[in-house]
Amino acid sequence: MSYDANNIFAKILRGEIPAITVYEDDQTLAFMDIMPQAHGHTLVIPKEAAETLHDLSDDAAANLIKKVKMIAAAVKSAMQAEGITLFQLNGEAAGQTVPHIHFHVLPGSIVTARAHASVPSDQSSLEDAAARIRSALEQVQH
Amino acid sequence: MSYDANNIFAKILRGEIPAITVYEDDQTLAFMDIMPQAHGHTLVIPKEAAETLHDLSDDAAANLIKKVKMIAAAVKSAMQAEGITLFQLNGEAAGQTVPHIHFHVLPGSIVTARAHASVPSDQSSLEDAAARIRSALEQVQH
Repeated sequence: MSYDANNIFAKILRGEIPAITVYEDDQTLAFMDIMPQAHGHTLVIPKEAAETLHDLSDDAAANLIKKVKMIAAAVKSAMQAEGITLFQLNGEAAGQTVPHIHFHVLPGSIVTARAHASVPSDQSSLEDAAARIRSALEQVQH
Repeated sequence: MSYDANNIFAKILRGEIPAITVYEDDQTLAFMDIMPQAHGHTLVIPKEAAETLHDLSDDAAANLIKKVKMIAAAVKSAMQAEGITLFQLNGEAAGQTVPHIHFHVLPGSIVTARAHASVPSDQSSLEDAAARIRSALEQVQH
């Protein structure tokens, strides 16, 4: 699969379009899903150019899951979520809508959440969740 | 969260109850979900005792996702799936039914799949999928 360098997450990584970021390091970016299935729904992506898990290097996958784990803990704490669902969709047939690999970190259950990529959220709601998650991440990291 | 050493996956890891295994190494076991949401639905678990992603060590998480990646490729190939969905549920509130961390590798989309943990499969159907996945894994690994 050839990587489309003009996908929306590639543009976010290059700073060409904005995102509400909660975490960034040299290999990873985490930001709010603008069509959240629940309040606090966060995406975690590697900076490595890869469309799906199948295309991602083993090293990038290993790094990514460690950051997903850290961010999942922060989302759980920030949103006072009793449970956290991770999901990661590979290919349009699985429901993938942006062709850059991303892990969804969803507070609660996917069964009771809104449908994937269905309802845009207002900015203030996203900013509220992001502020809480950033604050929780500071406590996780320090 | 204290780990329940009598959960069903702990018993599978100790060989006290059977599973239809497709892959095993010193840190990982992969086997067929006996209530598959789609044909080929496979579970990948670490041998480390951990209830959720939050409890798993970073090293075990890193190893686990590399094995999930390998098995996802085999499931995709074996089941001729156009897409692969990963999901991983943390806590009863997220729908987790067995308190040992596990990644679900699901051919296709979770939206069109059967509900989680709902319908037991017959043994021959599980064995058919497992045989195909083992064969695909041999090709992935060699």
